[in-house]
Amino acid sequence: MAKEIINREENYSLWYNNLVIKADLAENSAVRGCMVIKPYGYAIWEKIQAQLDKMFKETGHENAYFPLFIPKSFLSKEAEHVEGFAKECAVVTHHRLMANPDGPGVVVDPDAKLEEELVVRPTSETIIWSTYKNWIKSYRDLPLLINQWANVVRWEMRTRLFLRTTEFLWQEGHTAHATQAEAIEETERMVQVYAKFAREYMSMPVIVGRKSESERFAGALDTLCIEAMMQDGKALQAGTSHFLGQNFAKAFDVQFANKEGGLEYVWATSWGVSTRLMGALVMAHSDNNGLVLPPKLAPIQVVMVPIFKTDEEHESILIKMNEIKQKLTALGISSKIDDRDNLRSGFKFAEWELKGVPVRIAVGPRDMEKGTVELARRDTLAKEFVSQEGIEIHIQKLLDDIQANIYKKALDFRDANTVKVDDYETFKKRIEEGGFLLCHWDGTAETEEKIKNDTKATIRCIPMENAEEEEGFCVYSGKPSRQRVIFARAY
Amino acid sequence: MAKEIINREENYSLWYNNLVIKADLAENSAVRGCMVIKPYGYAIWEKIQAQLDKMFKETGHENAYFPLFIPKSFLSKEAEHVEGFAKECAVVTHHRLMANPDGPGVVVDPDAKLEEELVVRPTSETIIWSTYKNWIKSYRDLPLLINQWANVVRWEMRTRLFLRTTEFLWQEGHTAHATQAEAIEETERMVQVYAKFAREYMSMPVIVGRKSESERFAGALDTLCIEAMMQDGKALQAGTSHFLGQNFAKAFDVQFANKEGGLEYVWATSWGVSTRLMGALVMAHSDNNGLVLPPKLAPIQVVMVPIFKTDEEHESILIKMNEIKQKLTALGISSKIDDRDNLRSGFKFAEWELKGVPVRIAVGPRDMEKGTVELARRDTLAKEFVSQEGIEIHIQKLLDDIQANIYKKALDFRDANTVKVDDYETFKKRIEEGGFLLCHWDGTAETEEKIKNDTKATIRCIPMENAEEEEGFCVYSGKPSRQRVIFARAY
Repeated sequence: MAKEIINREENYSLWYNNLVIKADLAENSAVRGCMVIKPYGYAIWEKIQAQLDKMFKETGHENAYFPLFIPKSFLSKEAEHVEGFAKECAVVTHHRLMANPDGPGVVVDPDAKLEEELVVRPTSETIIWSTYKNWIKSYRDLPLLINQWANVVRWEMRTRLFLRTTEFLWQEGHTAHATQAEAIEETERMVQVYAKFAREYMSMPVIVGRKSESERFAGALDTLCIEAMMQDGKALQAGTSHFLGQNFAKAFDVQFANKEGGLEYVWATSWGVSTRLMGALVMAHSDNNGLVLPPKLAPIQVVMVPIFKTDEEHESILIKMNEIKQKLTALGISSKIDDRDNLRSGFKFAEWELKGVPVRIAVGPRDMEKGTVELARRDTLAKEFVSQEGIEIHIQKLLDDIQANIYKKALDFRDANTVKVDDYETFKKRIEEGGFLLCHWDGTAETEEKIKNDTKATIRCIPMENAEEEEGFCVYSGKPSRQRVIFARAY
Repeated sequence: MAKEIINREENYSLWYNNLVIKADLAENSAVRGCMVIKPYGYAIWEKIQAQLDKMFKETGHENAYFPLFIPKSFLSKEAEHVEGFAKECAVVTHHRLMANPDGPGVVVDPDAKLEEELVVRPTSETIIWSTYKNWIKSYRDLPLLINQWANVVRWEMRTRLFLRTTEFLWQEGHTAHATQAEAIEETERMVQVYAKFAREYMSMPVIVGRKSESERFAGALDTLCIEAMMQDGKALQAGTSHFLGQNFAKAFDVQFANKEGGLEYVWATSWGVSTRLMGALVMAHSDNNGLVLPPKLAPIQVVMVPIFKTDEEHESILIKMNEIKQKLTALGISSKIDDRDNLRSGFKFAEWELKGVPVRIAVGPRDMEKGTVELARRDTLAKEFVSQEGIEIHIQKLLDDIQANIYKKALDFRDANTVKVDDYETFKKRIEEGGFLLCHWDGTAETEEKIKNDTKATIRCIPMENAEEEEGFCVYSGKPSRQRVIFARAY
């Protein structure tokens, strides 16, 4: 197929956009900032959903569904929360259209104005905690461990497919606990679930850490996150888990009777990942030939392309491919035989590379004679001839190998692009090259702000895993510090 | 537990509402007309979703996701469609709130008015067909078989949990075809998928039929449906499949190049079922003790309640129950051991009856001695003592039996409440008793309208299966007719 994506090295941003569109993941819609997720992209999202949902259930959570709309007054019950979301929300003001009295089409019916405007949920803390007030009476009702799969809307001014869209799909966990300690434990448990998912399923190394105060969720006391490095060296926040303290319980007056019969406010967490993960998946692994999907999230793990001249050849190759397909299916490996009659095999190869299918099998008449297939792996583009006999076992191992190799490649890249920096002049130069800068920081929002204004770099997180205490001096102010934090430019 | 639901015979409508709330399926939210689907209700919906999704994929469909918002002008591109939906839609007019200059809280920012208002999707034909215009160029792009799982909003004035809510969850299939015949075939295929699902999974008998012109979907040339009878004799439309002709293709100028190179408009279908199915499930089978769930859709298929006095008894019973649980799990049967220490077993029995768990096992010290359990089935409330040995096989058969028995019971009820009526005086009396009235109809909208005004009965459908041609005379006008149709009052 015609090469239609620009090279990554030439224009990373355009390369990403080309890829998302050409690989049939998503496209812009007729509605400003909203995307259409196309079937191939949605199939990947379904795999992400299925695995996360399983992990949420294994950790004791249940799904539920809360309204799309939030009464305007609810948003302002938590002071920081409204500050964070009021400026970018879709507001429903009317409930009816009418025929245009002055011409064709329809107009808003002025008589159908709502008494109180409704906001399309940007996140659901307020509507959920107003509901929890009725659900939580006693310590026996706790913990309450609920997740919701939903669409949310934030009126973004600059949007990019998957990374930042006006409407996006996500899950939001909202849990209620009797004690602060339990809520903090839940916050940490869920950020670890996200880290495990990113590493084992997306093959994406992530750093688990804590946000600085200025990067916290609006209404949270503490925000934990997973941060990944993209191939241009920029950081991408891939998931967050918030310890909300008693803020929302107080805003919505949610108290429970403890074992001693006293009343206490409930402790809360919330945590979420979104279709933004799709953007991370694309940017973490893809190359100039297209997507590179980790096998565990690939809708099609193996594609088979027959190569033939005569009808007899065609028929015998298809019989063999169907045999292989059956054996793969028995091992739980998904495959597709691309038998389209109007396309050359070279075109098909390029198309499946573009779509990131991990393994490609080609079989021609010579292969049939020799009892072999040509096997190509998407991650390294390496080819080999292997026996048709036992090929399903070979592929099973190969898929595991690809899953691990993609991870290692991304980890090596991150390691190669992570440096300790101890003076601000070096910082300002080094940040231009991208990557993570491990620096001492004096812990103040002022320093953070100044560095951001100078360099566009923000504190991505204060690492929590393998975080060594280390005495040092703030890279900006020279004041004392006890741990390095990660600075980077970010999506 | 305290009996908190009113008897079905006393007030059917209140009984339904009590049941939905007390069984923890759903409740009204703080937003007018919108519901909260609680974890137990959502778990049933997840089972409905999973099975339908499987059936859609088996019939060649893929999932995708389209925007929540529809530009106002799109709605009016198809004349009948706007007529059907403009009067009941949520309209987004602004994209920002601001601090109230005159007091506390937030107000709509008048400077953030949208150039064109957005409607929250009441259904997605318009936004999807505006997208299909870019996806469909040639006959090779057809058929396009896409489904979407989504939330939709219709501004209903009178709402009831699950049956009619402002926001509801649903799936909407939108397919595009090269020929009229293929589109009609798809319309019929999907109504049959719905019928199969209703019968085999919901244990709910349904009649497959065609809507009269006045009951058609706004923009359709033909609407097929499945209609079920509730226990008060009223009809409930449980799913619809629409043949849309070329209406939306013409409205959005979607043409394809046929094999000969000529341009033709594309043929369309759409089809959907919603959380309304949850209401149907409740109303079709439940009794005065609570829900009666068909085993295939029950989140918990078997509940086990230990009965004991001493710690030793408790311990040995739990060991036995865990053994049984393992054996059930191995057969794919879900179970739960209710070991809550603060509730009497009588309370637990009532609670699980209320929640419709198909099979209950109780084990006490005497049972342990004898190697038996007490087994109660929810549908008939019958109890029996059975051996602990091989109990999992017994339960497996019992679940199948319950699934079939619930269906049969509903079918018998429908048969007993379906009558042929040939004169209008009888019609007017008989309709007061509920049920389906099989009558000849002259095929005119006028007659339909008059009968509706007189009796509140509508034509639920013109049956398509086992439909015998039969010469006769319209029950209202006396004009000739060739087939009986189903009249009933409906939800």
